[in-house]
Amino acid sequence: MSVLEAARRVKEASIKMAAAGTELKNSALGRIASKLLENGEAIFEANRRDVERSRSEGLAAPLVKRLVFDAGKLDEVVEGIKSLIALPDPVGRTLSATLLDEGLELYKVTCPIGVMGVIFESRPDALVQISSLCLKSGNAVLLKGGSEARETNRVLADIIVEAAAEAGLPPDWLKLLETRAEVSEMLKLDEYIDLIIPRGSNEFVRYIMDNSRIPVLGHADGICHLYVDEDADLDLAVRVAVDAKTQYVAVCNAVETLLVHEGVAGRFLPVLKSAMEERGVTLLGCPRTREIIPAGPATEEDWRTEYLDYVLSVKVVGGLEEAVEHINTYGSGHTDGIITGDPRRAADFMALVDSGNVFWNCSTRFSDGFRYGLGAEVGISTGKIHARGPVGLEGLVIYKYLLLGNGHVVADYAAKKRSFIHAPLKKDFPLSKI
Amino acid sequence: MSVLEAARRVKEASIKMAAAGTELKNSALGRIASKLLENGEAIFEANRRDVERSRSEGLAAPLVKRLVFDAGKLDEVVEGIKSLIALPDPVGRTLSATLLDEGLELYKVTCPIGVMGVIFESRPDALVQISSLCLKSGNAVLLKGGSEARETNRVLADIIVEAAAEAGLPPDWLKLLETRAEVSEMLKLDEYIDLIIPRGSNEFVRYIMDNSRIPVLGHADGICHLYVDEDADLDLAVRVAVDAKTQYVAVCNAVETLLVHEGVAGRFLPVLKSAMEERGVTLLGCPRTREIIPAGPATEEDWRTEYLDYVLSVKVVGGLEEAVEHINTYGSGHTDGIITGDPRRAADFMALVDSGNVFWNCSTRFSDGFRYGLGAEVGISTGKIHARGPVGLEGLVIYKYLLLGNGHVVADYAAKKRSFIHAPLKKDFPLSKI
Repeated sequence: MSVLEAARRVKEASIKMAAAGTELKNSALGRIASKLLENGEAIFEANRRDVERSRSEGLAAPLVKRLVFDAGKLDEVVEGIKSLIALPDPVGRTLSATLLDEGLELYKVTCPIGVMGVIFESRPDALVQISSLCLKSGNAVLLKGGSEARETNRVLADIIVEAAAEAGLPPDWLKLLETRAEVSEMLKLDEYIDLIIPRGSNEFVRYIMDNSRIPVLGHADGICHLYVDEDADLDLAVRVAVDAKTQYVAVCNAVETLLVHEGVAGRFLPVLKSAMEERGVTLLGCPRTREIIPAGPATEEDWRTEYLDYVLSVKVVGGLEEAVEHINTYGSGHTDGIITGDPRRAADFMALVDSGNVFWNCSTRFSDGFRYGLGAEVGISTGKIHARGPVGLEGLVIYKYLLLGNGHVVADYAAKKRSFIHAPLKKDFPLSKI
Repeated sequence: MSVLEAARRVKEASIKMAAAGTELKNSALGRIASKLLENGEAIFEANRRDVERSRSEGLAAPLVKRLVFDAGKLDEVVEGIKSLIALPDPVGRTLSATLLDEGLELYKVTCPIGVMGVIFESRPDALVQISSLCLKSGNAVLLKGGSEARETNRVLADIIVEAAAEAGLPPDWLKLLETRAEVSEMLKLDEYIDLIIPRGSNEFVRYIMDNSRIPVLGHADGICHLYVDEDADLDLAVRVAVDAKTQYVAVCNAVETLLVHEGVAGRFLPVLKSAMEERGVTLLGCPRTREIIPAGPATEEDWRTEYLDYVLSVKVVGGLEEAVEHINTYGSGHTDGIITGDPRRAADFMALVDSGNVFWNCSTRFSDGFRYGLGAEVGISTGKIHARGPVGLEGLVIYKYLLLGNGHVVADYAAKKRSFIHAPLKKDFPLSKI
C-alpha cells in the first residue's frame, strides 16, 4: 500500500474514531493490554531477532539496550495502558456554553484533532505508549518507528490493531510505516495529516520541522537555564543546580547554563565549583567567572549549546534584567528557573522569561508530564501555539462549535426583529450521549 | 529600518508587553480611543488622499467604498476599543493548579503568544481593530495593510503607537510594513514571529500559507453545506437554506452546497427552487436533482467551489452517511449544518462532520465571533490545532507552566525519599499581582 493510500484510509478511519465513545475506547485499550500479555512470547521473539540483527550490524550498546523489549517492558506498557484507561476522556468535554438567543444554544466541545503522524526512534515501547494515547484521545495515527526495531514494531502494531478491531474500532485507525522514504512521503501529506509529533534527537526533530508544512508538536533543543539571584539561599542554589545538571544529564530538561548575579558570584561560584567537581562536571565560564574560579572559557557558541553531558557553562550577570535577556536570547523556550528569596523578583522573572516552563527555587528536571501529574505525556513542546511545555492527552484534542437551533436565521437579527442574549449556559452539550 | 530589524525590535518589545498588567493595557486602549477622536481631521484628510489616489488609479468602486474612513468609521472603531476595554484580560488566567508535593505548586497560566504578523487588505479600520486586539492580549505586532490605504494606515499607526507609549507601553510593540517585498521578508522570520494572521481573499491566504514556516491562523475557503435529512421540517429547511445562501452571499459562512435526503428530495426540491428563484439564486444539480427540478448540471468541480455568489449546488444523497462523507471530502472544515427533527441523527451528524462549526436546524451564517458573543474576532480558523472556528482574544494567548518550590530536587523522588501528591489546588497563581 502506498503512503498516500495508507494516509487516506487512516483519515477515513479518523472520522469513526472521533465518534467513538469513552466505553468503546476504554474497552479497546483493555483488549490491547490483554492481547499484549497473551502474545508476550511472540513479541519477545521478534525483539530478540531485532536485537541480534542490530548487534551484528554494530549498533552502539546504549541503543541496543533501548531496543530491548522484555517481560519488564511488557509489564510497564500494560501498566501504562491501565492508567490511561483510568484517565478521564479528553473528548466530548464542554468547554463553554452560551445562550445566543431563545432556543439557540452554542456549545464549544472538545474533539480529536484527527490524524497524527508520529515518528520515533529505537524504543519499541514508545509504539504502544503513543498508539494508546492516540486511541484514548480518539485520533487515528500513522506511525514510524526506528528501523532497528522493525520486527518488534510489526508484531506490536498487529496486536494493537487486531485487539482494537475486536472491540469495534475501525481497522485502519493505525498504520505502520517502515522506511525513511515513507516518512518523506508522509511529511508532504498535509491534506490528510493534521499534526506531526517527532520524538528523537535535535537534528532529527529539526529535519522534520524544516521539511513539512504540517504543524509539528515537539522540541528540538532543551537549552535550560538556572539564574541565581542576589538574595538567593546559596545552599539551596547549589542543591538545585546539582540536581538540574547531574540528576540525568542526557535529557532535555537538564540545565546547560547557569547565570549568577554579580553580587553573590564571589561567594557562590567556589561552592558551586566544588559541588560540581564532585559529580565530574566540567565548568566553562565567562571572563568574570574565570576571575573568581578556574574554568575553561565559555564562547558565544557555548550559550547556544545543549551539552546533554557533564558540562555546565557559567555567566556572571549584572542583575535579573540581564539574566532574562540572556535566557530569551540564547534559550530554547523549554525550562528556566530562578533561585531567589524575594517573591517579587520571582514574579518578575516568571513574567519576563518567554519559556514554556518557568520555575522558582526548584530543579528544571521537574519539567515532565509524569511529574506534572498529566498522567501520560506525548512530548514536550517549545512551540508557542496549541500546546506548550509537557503535553498530555489534552494536547491531542481541539474543539468544535456546536450550535442547536430551531429554524433560527441571521436575517431576523440583521433586521433587528430579534437580538442576541449571549448569556452563559451552565450545562454540558446535551446530544453527546443520545 | 529593515524588516529584520523591525521584527527584532517588536520581539524585544513583546517581552515587556507580556508583563504589562490589565490596568496599563486598558489605560493605553483608553488613550488610543481619545487620541483617535482628537485627531479625526488628520485621519480623514489622509484618507481623502488615499481615496482620491485610488480612484484616479482606477480601483473598483466597492473597494474604494471599503477604503473610506469617515466620522462614522471613527465612531465605530472607538466603540470597538471601548467594548474591548470592558472584556476580561485573557492574560494571567490560571487554567489549572496542582500540588505536586508539599511546597511544590504547579500553575498553568495564560500568557500572550508573543509577536503576531497580521496582513490585511483595503479597510483601514481593520488596523485599529487588530492592533487593539493585540494590545489587549499583550502581543506585539507587525502589521501590513493594503497599499491603497497607506496614508490612512500611517496616521492611524502613529496615533496608536504614540498613545500607547504615553500610557507606558514600549514604543516598538507595533510596527507598520508598507510593501509586498516587506511581507515576503516577514514570512521568513520564524525566529521572531510566532503567528501569522492573514485577512483577505482565498488566493491571498493560500499564498501566505504556502510561503511561510510560521503557523497561520485563518481560513482560505468557506465551502459550507446544509444537509436536509429525511424527517426535516421542510418549511424550516427552506427558511434556513434561503438565509444561509442569500442573507449575504459574499461571505465565508454562506452555504455553497445543499445536500438532500432522497426520501424527501421530491417534495423539498420544488419548494426550494421557487424560494431560491425569488431571490435570484441559480441552482446547479446532480443528475438525480435534475430529474426532479430543472437546473444546470453540477460537476465535480462545483462540489469544491466557493461561489460567494447567487449560485447553489444541490445533490441528492442516500442518507446521513453519504452526506457526511460528501462534506468531509469536499468541505473546507468551516461550517456545516443539518436540518432534521431527530436529535439522534443531529447527534450523529455533529459527531461525524469534521468541521469547526457544526449546526442543527439553524443558518450557517451564525458562524461569526460577534454572533457567538466572543466580543471581538481575530478571524475564523479552519485549522485543527490551537484555535478553530471564530477566534476571539482567547486565540491570541497560550500558557506557561509556573512551578514554585523551596529547594525541591528530582533526585529525592528518583530515590523514593519523597513521592508526588498530584492533588488539584483550588487557587490562582499567587505571584501575578505582587
